[in-house]
Amino acid sequence: TTYSIAVIPGDGIGPEVVAEAVKVLDAVTEPAGITLAKTTYPLGAEHWLATGEVLSDETLDQLRGHDAILFGAVGAAPNDTRIPSGILERDLLLKLRFTFDHYINLRPATLYLGTTSPLAEPGDIDFVVVREGTEGLYAGNGGRVRQGTDHEIATEVSINTAHGVRRLVKYAFELAQKRPRKKLTLVHKHNVLVNAGRLYQETVNQFAPQYPDVTVDYLHIDAATIFLTTEPSRFDVIVTDNLFGDILTDQAGAVTGGIGLAPCGNINADRTAPSMFEPVHGSAPDIAGTATAQPVAAILAAAMMLEHLGHENLADQINQAVRRDLETHGNEKRSTDQVGDHIVAALQDA
Amino acid sequence: TTYSIAVIPGDGIGPEVVAEAVKVLDAVTEPAGITLAKTTYPLGAEHWLATGEVLSDETLDQLRGHDAILFGAVGAAPNDTRIPSGILERDLLLKLRFTFDHYINLRPATLYLGTTSPLAEPGDIDFVVVREGTEGLYAGNGGRVRQGTDHEIATEVSINTAHGVRRLVKYAFELAQKRPRKKLTLVHKHNVLVNAGRLYQETVNQFAPQYPDVTVDYLHIDAATIFLTTEPSRFDVIVTDNLFGDILTDQAGAVTGGIGLAPCGNINADRTAPSMFEPVHGSAPDIAGTATAQPVAAILAAAMMLEHLGHENLADQINQAVRRDLETHGNEKRSTDQVGDHIVAALQDA
Ligand SMILES: CC(C)[C@H](C(=O)O)[C@@H](O)C(=O)O
Ligand SMILES: CC(C)[C@H](C(=O)O)[C@@H](O)C(=O)O
Repeated sequence: TTYSIAVIPGDGIGPEVVAEAVKVLDAVTEPAGITLAKTTYPLGAEHWLATGEVLSDETLDQLRGHDAILFGAVGAAPNDTRIPSGILERDLLLKLRFTFDHYINLRPATLYLGTTSPLAEPGDIDFVVVREGTEGLYAGNGGRVRQGTDHEIATEVSINTAHGVRRLVKYAFELAQKRPRKKLTLVHKHNVLVNAGRLYQETVNQFAPQYPDVTVDYLHIDAATIFLTTEPSRFDVIVTDNLFGDILTDQAGAVTGGIGLAPCGNINADRTAPSMFEPVHGSAPDIAGTATAQPVAAILAAAMMLEHLGHENLADQINQAVRRDLETHGNEKRSTDQVGDHIVAALQDA
Repeated sequence: TTYSIAVIPGDGIGPEVVAEAVKVLDAVTEPAGITLAKTTYPLGAEHWLATGEVLSDETLDQLRGHDAILFGAVGAAPNDTRIPSGILERDLLLKLRFTFDHYINLRPATLYLGTTSPLAEPGDIDFVVVREGTEGLYAGNGGRVRQGTDHEIATEVSINTAHGVRRLVKYAFELAQKRPRKKLTLVHKHNVLVNAGRLYQETVNQFAPQYPDVTVDYLHIDAATIFLTTEPSRFDVIVTDNLFGDILTDQAGAVTGGIGLAPCGNINADRTAPSMFEPVHGSAPDIAGTATAQPVAAILAAAMMLEHLGHENLADQINQAVRRDLETHGNEKRSTDQVGDHIVAALQDA
């Protein structure tokens, strides 16, 4: 079997961690007789500086033709004034999420043996955030009136649809049902955001009877950040909106021993366009070029990609190799490519 | 001098912690020849059940006549289906914040000696969040279209004005300038919320030259939750919008050893209406009546009230007594009124 994979390494440490993810992907797919035909798209800051273009319609069309996308990270250095703030994130990363209808933004949070967290013991944290990916405050709806005057009003509109919330909540229930603890926690702020919050809560209430074995819970976003600190083991599957999911998963990354271990699947579960897999972390321009970037998040994202392509078994091989590697070497100081090499070795040991 | 104070004990543990705050207030003001004339307003769940009214215009007018308001907490038990979710929060707490133009929502976060945090050493955390209190996603602007159908759209509109952001940012700069570290961090998400985010960032940029001794920094909200976990000592003054402030301060409460120690000032800095002081925590119906509620947050809120009334010296006496008490008894198991008694004793020892 051959899959056609688009690779977007991006900026900063993006290309460094993607190289390790590709190394591990090849090591697991080749022995299985699977070929990943990769096309690299050099998008990001350099491309913008050279062409003034973030993502052309033509490139978007080409990307659509692939079976999946492996994405590194984009974003210029904060002090690089040549590139308008946020333009790469919005016109590349978010544009892909919206155009390809990546409505499930799937973010597992695991505390691995061999890594340390100040807040829990390894094994105690194992949850997944099912974040909405195509609406909410990310819809890009809002504006500035009387800009720059004393009377300016700037708005941001969170757009939430029954269509969007239902497909999200259904996915989250199905995921919860497959997991040993079968628990679903809706996180929102329905005491203040009464419109969107009630749509979410009512949707969860509607689906719940179809999943009688799933325990349903609710937390306000502010309370959820407390429990992530004081009792992260209480979570199994969290379902939440786009912005709350953004916030919670970065906090979860910190709580599980570092954002360098947190992968993300941008999934179109209807498969009408390619899904995209990336580390949660950003381009970290401050450490780019030092070979110190942690590639595990990108490698775990690659495993999510294989699972999405139907190769759960190969995904599991990577996940187990990462576990074994972290158990043995988790607290050592290693270069980016050493980590990749060790994980390949752990794969071959198995 | 006599001040007229409105006391709104509220629901759950609200009355329990407010009683201790009043005890400490009296102990510090009486020897100074200051009289606090208190009027109690029995608002909250019981009042709603008895009258069907959350807050009448008449009560609102009476409250306006006081010099300050001491507030406990409101909110029915989550399983009390007689009271519509969020109605007490919105029609009482938020209504007061909006009607009395409490545009500064001031929330100090301190890790006290004698208390423990998994994430830092006592003394390492000492920052203040200056949260906007009267606009953003709390404006109550939004709605549901085609409610209950497959085609529903639910919106929430974040409203941000130059007026609102300027007075907030100015207050935050002035506060930062008074503190030893003189550092101001804007927290927003201007790579996605480009309209509101830019208004905030541009406003900070405009004021910065007037405060040349203040160091200015920026973090996206998602990155801020990471740093609150990994490096909380980096913060001094944080300025942020209403919702981000809500989220960050609950997380900060957890990081500094418990939300039971976190006070909040809802401040109208123009003094056109009474300001209101409350603990950050909620009514915690699950522990109401067990005498286990931690009253320190309410006591520190009472100190903020005295400071607002111009008695910085008395406020400081309370703050120092709390510090001494926590140092001595911080890790003991004490009942709510024992804590109040100990703090009164610590005041008298001084
Ligand atoms: C880069 C940014 C636009 C993005 C987001 O906010 O979704 C990132 O923080 C993420 O979580 O993937
Ligand atoms: C009760 C709720 C409306 C309130 C808020 O969201 O502001 C509370 O969480 C707070 O932080 O004071």
